[in-house]
Amino acid sequence: VSAEAALVLHSYYRSSAAWRVRIALNMKGLDHRIVTRHLRRGEQSTPDYLALNPQGLVPTLEAAGKGALTQSLAIIDYLDELHPEPPLRPGPALRRARILAFALAIACDIHPVQNLKVLHRLRALGHAEPEIAGWAKAVIEDGLEACEQLIADEPGPFCFGPAPTLADLCLVPQLANARRFEVEPRWPRLVAAERAARALPAFAAAAPERQPDFEAA
Amino acid sequence: VSAEAALVLHSYYRSSAAWRVRIALNMKGLDHRIVTRHLRRGEQSTPDYLALNPQGLVPTLEAAGKGALTQSLAIIDYLDELHPEPPLRPGPALRRARILAFALAIACDIHPVQNLKVLHRLRALGHAEPEIAGWAKAVIEDGLEACEQLIADEPGPFCFGPAPTLADLCLVPQLANARRFEVEPRWPRLVAAERAARALPAFAAAAPERQPDFEAA
Repeated sequence: VSAEAALVLHSYYRSSAAWRVRIALNMKGLDHRIVTRHLRRGEQSTPDYLALNPQGLVPTLEAAGKGALTQSLAIIDYLDELHPEPPLRPGPALRRARILAFALAIACDIHPVQNLKVLHRLRALGHAEPEIAGWAKAVIEDGLEACEQLIADEPGPFCFGPAPTLADLCLVPQLANARRFEVEPRWPRLVAAERAARALPAFAAAAPERQPDFEAA
Repeated sequence: VSAEAALVLHSYYRSSAAWRVRIALNMKGLDHRIVTRHLRRGEQSTPDYLALNPQGLVPTLEAAGKGALTQSLAIIDYLDELHPEPPLRPGPALRRARILAFALAIACDIHPVQNLKVLHRLRALGHAEPEIAGWAKAVIEDGLEACEQLIADEPGPFCFGPAPTLADLCLVPQLANARRFEVEPRWPRLVAAERAARALPAFAAAAPERQPDFEAA
């Protein structure tokens, strides 16, 4: 991680979406610098950051001379297109699409429905913490149950075969989120894929506890 | 639309996600058959449908002899890879990624946070209809405000240049959703792109009121 890196990632240690991109950068072996944005202190809502990312979310990737790119799956797609090895969506078109579908089942239908922003909206509606945690728990359980079925016929050890793909990049942070909300993962294929992934250096180095802004809970 | 079509789309007239895929099928000129799944009657939760789509969501694409594919953006990516003309994400890598980022800003951060499933969860927590509508409205307004800024420097008429892309496929259904929740679109670039898109036959034929399961409100 260099001070002169051509790639700058705006990240927050606990953000699932930023975590996905950190894994991708590590897998591709790309030199990069991390700028931390503390979401609970509102560092994603400063005017300078909103100029980069109008949604006020992390991550954002800045590539020297090319401006800012938002949305974790778009950033990963860009990195995968410029640096094809190792491929994050290997295989023929249908296989590539199935990997993307699994990733989207997490990135569209689980994570945004249980993220900090939505939990704040529930708080603003007057819900107490146990109700809010119950919401997150239900969303995560429903979603991961479906994810397990999406790869029921896959031999593993990763979500889609012998090497990690975009699916595993999305799964690992989502399972960490699950545990934060006291969902004990009961899905054997998902847990096996997570174990295989977390054993890899690229995944290990991207974990929240290895980030510069990590705070023990 | 043929009874013998090699492609079958499971759709619901009012689903934003199914609507995106209907536009893509039309733009690519692909023969297909539509099977309607009435979400308000629970036709997405039958055992036969859950075997195709474990999330119990529409759309699902069935391709003869190839099984089922879920998630609208994965289905569209698959169609775009097999049938590259017209390209739904044209241009060099960074441009392709920016188009995807705009689509994901809608498909991850707006639509799933205001869809039927989430509104049901709010209802189950005891919220009255005006509060639920207020939730949807706030999510849509925040999200579309950011989308307008993502294409502020684009000349138009479409979201990204002179032809419709994946961004427009996501925008048109989301603006219709906005109006259902009494958000009057006040974003000039988004509205201009919508107008350009809705003038095209591929978009017009995909609209809810042209679907076999359409019901007047």
